[in-house]
Amino acid sequence: MASTRVAVVGATGYTGEELLRLLLHHPAIQLTYLAASAKWERPTPVSDVFPRFTGQLDLPIEPVDPARLLKASDAVFLALPHGEAMKLAPALVDAGKLVVDLSGDFRLRAPGLYPQWYHLEHAAPSWLTDARVAYGLSEWCRDAIAKARLVANPGCYATSILLAILPLFQAGLIEQDAFIVDAKSGLSGAGRKAETPLLFGEMSQNLRAYKVNQHQHMPEVLQGIEQLTGRHGRMTFVPQVIPVHRGMLSMIYLRTGSALKDVMAAYARAYPAGRAPFVRVREGSLPQLRDVVETNRCDIGIMHDGSGQLIIASALDNLTKGASGQAVQNLNLMLGVPETAGLL
Amino acid sequence: MASTRVAVVGATGYTGEELLRLLLHHPAIQLTYLAASAKWERPTPVSDVFPRFTGQLDLPIEPVDPARLLKASDAVFLALPHGEAMKLAPALVDAGKLVVDLSGDFRLRAPGLYPQWYHLEHAAPSWLTDARVAYGLSEWCRDAIAKARLVANPGCYATSILLAILPLFQAGLIEQDAFIVDAKSGLSGAGRKAETPLLFGEMSQNLRAYKVNQHQHMPEVLQGIEQLTGRHGRMTFVPQVIPVHRGMLSMIYLRTGSALKDVMAAYARAYPAGRAPFVRVREGSLPQLRDVVETNRCDIGIMHDGSGQLIIASALDNLTKGASGQAVQNLNLMLGVPETAGLL
Amino acid sequence: MASTRVAVVGATGYTGEELLRLLLHHPAIQLTYLAASAKWERPTPVSDVFPRFTGQLDLPIEPVDPARLLKASDAVFLALPHGEAMKLAPALVDAGKLVVDLSGDFRLRAPGLYPQWYHLEHAAPSWLTDARVAYGLSEWCRDAIAKARLVANPGCYATSILLAILPLFQAGLIEQDAFIVDAKSGLSGAGRKAETPLLFGEMSQNLRAYKVNQHQHMPEVLQGIEQLTGRHGRMTFVPQVIPVHRGMLSMIYLRTGSALKDVMAAYARAYPAGRAPFVRVREGSLPQLRDVVETNRCDIGIMHDGSGQLIIASALDNLTKGASGQAVQNLNLMLGVPETAGLL
Amino acid sequence: MASTRVAVVGATGYTGEELLRLLLHHPAIQLTYLAASAKWERPTPVSDVFPRFTGQLDLPIEPVDPARLLKASDAVFLALPHGEAMKLAPALVDAGKLVVDLSGDFRLRAPGLYPQWYHLEHAAPSWLTDARVAYGLSEWCRDAIAKARLVANPGCYATSILLAILPLFQAGLIEQDAFIVDAKSGLSGAGRKAETPLLFGEMSQNLRAYKVNQHQHMPEVLQGIEQLTGRHGRMTFVPQVIPVHRGMLSMIYLRTGSALKDVMAAYARAYPAGRAPFVRVREGSLPQLRDVVETNRCDIGIMHDGSGQLIIASALDNLTKGASGQAVQNLNLMLGVPETAGLL
Repeated sequence: MASTRVAVVGATGYTGEELLRLLLHHPAIQLTYLAASAKWERPTPVSDVFPRFTGQLDLPIEPVDPARLLKASDAVFLALPHGEAMKLAPALVDAGKLVVDLSGDFRLRAPGLYPQWYHLEHAAPSWLTDARVAYGLSEWCRDAIAKARLVANPGCYATSILLAILPLFQAGLIEQDAFIVDAKSGLSGAGRKAETPLLFGEMSQNLRAYKVNQHQHMPEVLQGIEQLTGRHGRMTFVPQVIPVHRGMLSMIYLRTGSALKDVMAAYARAYPAGRAPFVRVREGSLPQLRDVVETNRCDIGIMHDGSGQLIIASALDNLTKGASGQAVQNLNLMLGVPETAGLL
Repeated sequence: MASTRVAVVGATGYTGEELLRLLLHHPAIQLTYLAASAKWERPTPVSDVFPRFTGQLDLPIEPVDPARLLKASDAVFLALPHGEAMKLAPALVDAGKLVVDLSGDFRLRAPGLYPQWYHLEHAAPSWLTDARVAYGLSEWCRDAIAKARLVANPGCYATSILLAILPLFQAGLIEQDAFIVDAKSGLSGAGRKAETPLLFGEMSQNLRAYKVNQHQHMPEVLQGIEQLTGRHGRMTFVPQVIPVHRGMLSMIYLRTGSALKDVMAAYARAYPAGRAPFVRVREGSLPQLRDVVETNRCDIGIMHDGSGQLIIASALDNLTKGASGQAVQNLNLMLGVPETAGLL
Repeated sequence: MASTRVAVVGATGYTGEELLRLLLHHPAIQLTYLAASAKWERPTPVSDVFPRFTGQLDLPIEPVDPARLLKASDAVFLALPHGEAMKLAPALVDAGKLVVDLSGDFRLRAPGLYPQWYHLEHAAPSWLTDARVAYGLSEWCRDAIAKARLVANPGCYATSILLAILPLFQAGLIEQDAFIVDAKSGLSGAGRKAETPLLFGEMSQNLRAYKVNQHQHMPEVLQGIEQLTGRHGRMTFVPQVIPVHRGMLSMIYLRTGSALKDVMAAYARAYPAGRAPFVRVREGSLPQLRDVVETNRCDIGIMHDGSGQLIIASALDNLTKGASGQAVQNLNLMLGVPETAGLL
Repeated sequence: MASTRVAVVGATGYTGEELLRLLLHHPAIQLTYLAASAKWERPTPVSDVFPRFTGQLDLPIEPVDPARLLKASDAVFLALPHGEAMKLAPALVDAGKLVVDLSGDFRLRAPGLYPQWYHLEHAAPSWLTDARVAYGLSEWCRDAIAKARLVANPGCYATSILLAILPLFQAGLIEQDAFIVDAKSGLSGAGRKAETPLLFGEMSQNLRAYKVNQHQHMPEVLQGIEQLTGRHGRMTFVPQVIPVHRGMLSMIYLRTGSALKDVMAAYARAYPAGRAPFVRVREGSLPQLRDVVETNRCDIGIMHDGSGQLIIASALDNLTKGASGQAVQNLNLMLGVPETAGLL
């Protein structure tokens, strides 16, 4: 495969680190430019920030310089905090670059949603519905992603929930379109931020709920249901952090009038054998984190209690399929190389 | 306070270790006999099994010897695996000892439930409804416990769930009496058993569901609702283990037609100020494990989404309020000493 | 016992939290004033900072106000970062308060050492050798502590190392007075600071050495050897953090010409039975962290390879015996109440 | 590259699991037979034992059947407990198979050492010095490995220690040939055995030393020094387990009369640029576990205190470079494919 010159902006965070881990061994990609946010003080060898890459990657991480970014890359991963990507992405697309944005800046299409859930004005609102932008849930948006110039990579919770419930909404199997999600995430989902609640000492023997029914991935899930199945959903959402670095499990509770075999058939239609290499569906048991960590897979397990209650567990690695792995999968789709290139 | 001579049978497990930790400093209790199951090979200094107690407790842990047990103690904690306590407890009670059983052997009253959920015949079925036996949910059964000779100490999940939902059942605030429990437990809940799924290597970065809708604490919860409120409940139960040693959080989802203030009033009636020193109830936020670990407290947080969905989190330490701490609380009630003696 | 009014300044950190945990149940102490550093913005209920204390402690944590501090307390624990205690302590002592300072501000007596190792000028250098100040290694300085007005509570590493090697220096058993310390500490030793290297994600599966031969507890150890045994020591020191919140184990390597029985006799003289209730010494095996965590004990194990090499492990809880527990032990000595009051 | 048919015997343990993880994506290898020990009860899909491999590896794990093993494979990894490999390996070699043995069965050459350190008689002692057997420290034994039919893959501690000290012994830079190793290992080094000391509950907040100066990797290190540098070493060895699943750090203390630049020159000669792709040496700082986990690298950091004391840290992943990764590296050498094939 020919090699695409790729930049990672936001290389100092956990999703940035994971992008480097994956891209170092990608057969169709050459890393050519690494940047942090503009507040980063000076070019720093990547081995100073992440000693694990010593001898493998001989680039500095620089304060982001748009001119150098344009010159050095054909495709760009933006792994920045919310609010920063929207300032960089439009110019990159206009200059002909392919962009995968891992932040929430381009995920919500309806005006007003972004300020409501991210507590920020949007700097480029017209781009939210621009035809060059696609939502990056790989398994459900392949054609749009392949044609897009800017992919809004989904949130980690949104990925784990949508992959698990879209087949049921598509098949119309959920009573009253209501569901409850009790989700548990590794701490890396909160980013590599120097904040007290993320300290080892606060979390090493803890479990903590946060942003109950107020997490910004909620409107993303509801928009995804509507956009991809034409239906309306109602969601109760309790995200929680548990003492692991990587991994996420969304436990989904919903009621159905359908038999288990019809439920399973909906999944088989949504993820036909051989067509969704990163999604594994099982009946009668639930996945554990250990099955998916450090992979790009999403494991979905379905149980039915015989009287209408479905229990669905969706497990993935929040840094891989929930962020950087899916971002690579999406760039693969944009480049027309095999969807699985560089991914396990 | 006068000192009661107390034996711990099953002293080599995690609930046994926790009993020793608590009883060492109990003002009204003197530890006089420590035993393991009959399979234990020979008397062993407690400091060989738990070096932390070196110099604090100068007793051997012996293979259980009923004659010595009778002679050495006035009250007995049975911290044995299910199926063993039922062989020892009746003779102890008949001999005039006070017994607190931490296993599931005397919790389920209806014939047939024990074999169905514990996969064992019961050796003393007439005792399940004997007048000398009380269910040991301290805050709800104080009078019965005070009169009982044998207390069936509740299961850890049952304690965390019942303390959180009984006020609502009592007040008749739950639609259709149905609720969902997504519970997370520290590994110590599974006991100190040499089994592969409990290894550090299996769980250090894992989360795993088990016994979905098949856990033996389910019938205990439903029986507790009926016995203590006269109502019938329907429960979906997904227990999970997370990588902590101690701590349990039950996240409970249910629907109500009542306003939050009526919900809170139900809790205030159930746990009046000053009358339930180990239960803390809060509105609008959810407790974390860190708030209760190594204490005998149960923290309950209640959130209402404004359209009928209640989210209730109940946090406790599965080894303390979920097992050994509540067991001490129950013996305090039986002895007529302050309920909080020896507990934090 | 009569009750002493006690203030904790620096109540929002990990040693502050541990002081509150211990003092809440201390029989001779009443907490009357809680403060954070002067940068703290506004009085905040302690239950907002540490929800675990809800209902147990009805005081706000305030920005430190020297006038209120003087009025509200008879004794003061200073649990502040290095450099802050030295600004507060002298006035407190001059006003007749008893002070236990948990920082490094008053530990090093020789002028020049403080700036060299703490990279700060000292604000009150004359106090470093003031007669009212005592070094707070409880087991070795009891008389001085009992007479002091200001106790410089030892560093966690210093406590674990000095308790283990002072008996050998005192007895003159170490060849060339040289020893190597390979020490491992829980993360809480670094404080409750929002810094990237202390994040859960950086440390959850990590071990990291830091400040090799440059840690500020080194000169404290060497001074302690000289002050308490009159000898000179040479130390190689490699501190490391491991993924636990609490606990510290110092593995000490040194050479001796003496037999093991002479070594053990030195320990027996230093810690006679019944005279050092928190120090446990064993021969032929090494302690583990689990034996001492959440207690005020220091466990010391000694092995001799038969050809002159001694291996000594010293284990304690860095927040208890290594900080707040020893601080309480020291105030007990100053107050003339039993040394073990309020401690396990 | 042509594909070699490979069997893994001992596929149900942690080193077995790691072999599967690595070999699944190896460009020159095809997995054709998976076995457990003969005690394994019945053929079981690999996805039942390790759900993570579901859909990736469609082989059962069978009780080992020597006839099927011979027929199905050209090369065999033996990842069995000590004492089992020695019964299988000779027949495999005699039948022309290439064998990499991850146990200790063929590491110690001198008669008497195996029974002394492994507490077992050896079933095939003549093989310990057979010309077809090579010690598998890849970077130091490449030529012998390339010619061997049976490679005795080194122990994890031995790998981490030998890679760090052989350059110094080779160059004759160590005073009195004595050194101290304070080593910390993840729990997976103890294997996937259902034993109480390996439970999550015993180790989640613990650090524990074991087999002090009695670990079976000690004679292996001393033999390696002698065999590979012709010198004699003296070792003090304190292995410890810490609460991580993977990763090992050996902290080595030794004295030298040489300057740091001469020390570094010794490493540069031992690991010339480009010739030891998995060894990274640095001066003046020490590696952390996070830098090497899930890779086949060994990171070595060297510090010199200016007065003769060297501090050397050697970090690797005990399951990869300390076991299965080095085993793959060795089979690569035996097969004549690039040493790095299938490894990161």
